[in-house]
Amino acid sequence: MQAQGIPQQRALGRAVRELRARRGWSQEHLADRAGVHRNYVGSMERGELNPTWRTLLRFSAGLHIPMTELFAVYERQLAGG
Amino acid sequence: MQAQGIPQQRALGRAVRELRARRGWSQEHLADRAGVHRNYVGSMERGELNPTWRTLLRFSAGLHIPMTELFAVYERQLAGG
Repeated sequence: MQAQGIPQQRALGRAVRELRARRGWSQEHLADRAGVHRNYVGSMERGELNPTWRTLLRFSAGLHIPMTELFAVYERQLAGG
Repeated sequence: MQAQGIPQQRALGRAVRELRARRGWSQEHLADRAGVHRNYVGSMERGELNPTWRTLLRFSAGLHIPMTELFAVYERQLAGG
């Protein structure tokens, strides 16, 4: 079961979108790098998903950043959103 | 499916254990605070679980720390282990 749209999921989605946009990548390109389906990236960025730890690791690896940086951006998005 | 024992899962488990131990809490107490089953905390600390984002949020809330601090401890555990 995945409840949609809780603030923390939306902030996580915005963090992924921000980090992807900084690199100028399409959702497809990030999907390739992270090893997930392209539709998954869109759903993630919209805050619709409750990803597992291992999926988050795929994103941090695909974005080439440590988990701490992903979560620093997340905290900022959560505070601002 | 949950593959056991990948380094990142073990480091996450050690991070949870470290943060719990700092507070002098039992696994049962943390389980109560995080709203998970007491066996779940033990499995998590042993690196056997691939928790979802929302479960990680429960742990950070139960430990009363931001996600960034949880992941800072995780990164240190990953580097050291």
